[in-house]
Amino acid sequence: MKSLTRYLTMNLPSKMAFENITPQVTEAVRASGVQEGLALVNSMHITASVFINDDERGLHHDFGKWLEALAPFNPDPTHYHHNRTGEDNADAHLKRQIMGREVVVAITKGKLDFGPWEQIFYGEFDGFRQKRVLIKVIGE
Amino acid sequence: MKSLTRYLTMNLPSKMAFENITPQVTEAVRASGVQEGLALVNSMHITASVFINDDERGLHHDFGKWLEALAPFNPDPTHYHHNRTGEDNADAHLKRQIMGREVVVAITKGKLDFGPWEQIFYGEFDGFRQKRVLIKVIGE
Amino acid sequence: MKSLTRYLTMNLPSKMAFENITPQVTEAVRASGVQEGLALVNSMHITASVFINDDERGLHHDFGKWLEALAPFNPDPTHYHHNRTGEDNADAHLKRQIMGREVVVAITKGKLDFGPWEQIFYGEFDGFRQKRVLIKVIGE
Repeated sequence: MKSLTRYLTMNLPSKMAFENITPQVTEAVRASGVQEGLALVNSMHITASVFINDDERGLHHDFGKWLEALAPFNPDPTHYHHNRTGEDNADAHLKRQIMGREVVVAITKGKLDFGPWEQIFYGEFDGFRQKRVLIKVIGE
Repeated sequence: MKSLTRYLTMNLPSKMAFENITPQVTEAVRASGVQEGLALVNSMHITASVFINDDERGLHHDFGKWLEALAPFNPDPTHYHHNRTGEDNADAHLKRQIMGREVVVAITKGKLDFGPWEQIFYGEFDGFRQKRVLIKVIGE
Repeated sequence: MKSLTRYLTMNLPSKMAFENITPQVTEAVRASGVQEGLALVNSMHITASVFINDDERGLHHDFGKWLEALAPFNPDPTHYHHNRTGEDNADAHLKRQIMGREVVVAITKGKLDFGPWEQIFYGEFDGFRQKRVLIKVIGE
């Protein structure tokens, strides 16, 4: 069994943002030499997501507005108890649960086995700081 | 390491619907000969889901009503910016995030290692068109 | 390829609760002898979740309040059709979709490859009964 581990460093200059990391995952799969296997891609931080959806600017706007309605930012510690710790990012922990922590993608004949529109995104919900994404490839 | 790749073709005759695909995944695991390993099952399209829950008609009704309340269909491009592209399926991209893209299931002694009620579903949120599901089995 | 299968028995004494199961997963990874691979951890029941987030009491309070707002408990069978089966736990099936069924975690140099705050939780949404969690480790 072959395996490869890569860490990406993210540093998005806004509270909420989405970045396409498909090129970095594609490169990690190529470097692994794995022909048949799985690629796990996950956020290593709990106020961020990795997910697969469409690389379309309007949709990302919609994700942002929708997540803000479902889990609004509110630093008031009487609203979210988590913000009694001195943090103001409780909403980011909730948003991340909707969008997910990780994706697992099949590798077939040495490539990410994707449908026509699948792209991998890092979703940031508490930005302006450095975070990491893990890529783990296993297979043969 | 053994591996097997299968593609299922789905073509559901309604905007939103849920179909039990456990038999197809069970058959793929059997065909793989894998005794101990993992099965990844994912939608290859970004307006559909693969998820595990109960095969109960009333619950599927509840899922539909609940998802429609959380992410309502609205073709108006002033509501969802994604619909400025000429699409009207922004709501389907949001619904799929709640229900998820994929499941990873353990294979133990040659079988899907399931709890008493676990069943695998394809969830369609923008139907009336052909889509695909990927099954990837790895293990020994 | 090495593999290990473990089942945890959960029995939480409340309708909704979150329990940190990271120590049990850490021990399973150690026992497997796997140095490079993947650990799948999933609820075997469809009214419970396994997810990764912060071990902070205030945040767990926020999760509970938020999930109750998004998918309220309501035993009335005219509200949730699932409750026409004699069950009263339709809300628990919905809550579990938001929080997810499973996590897949990388194993690097024999350890769970975690970011600074990642902890694995069992999320119960229909407690007062015995349920199981599956841990499957594969790798080399």
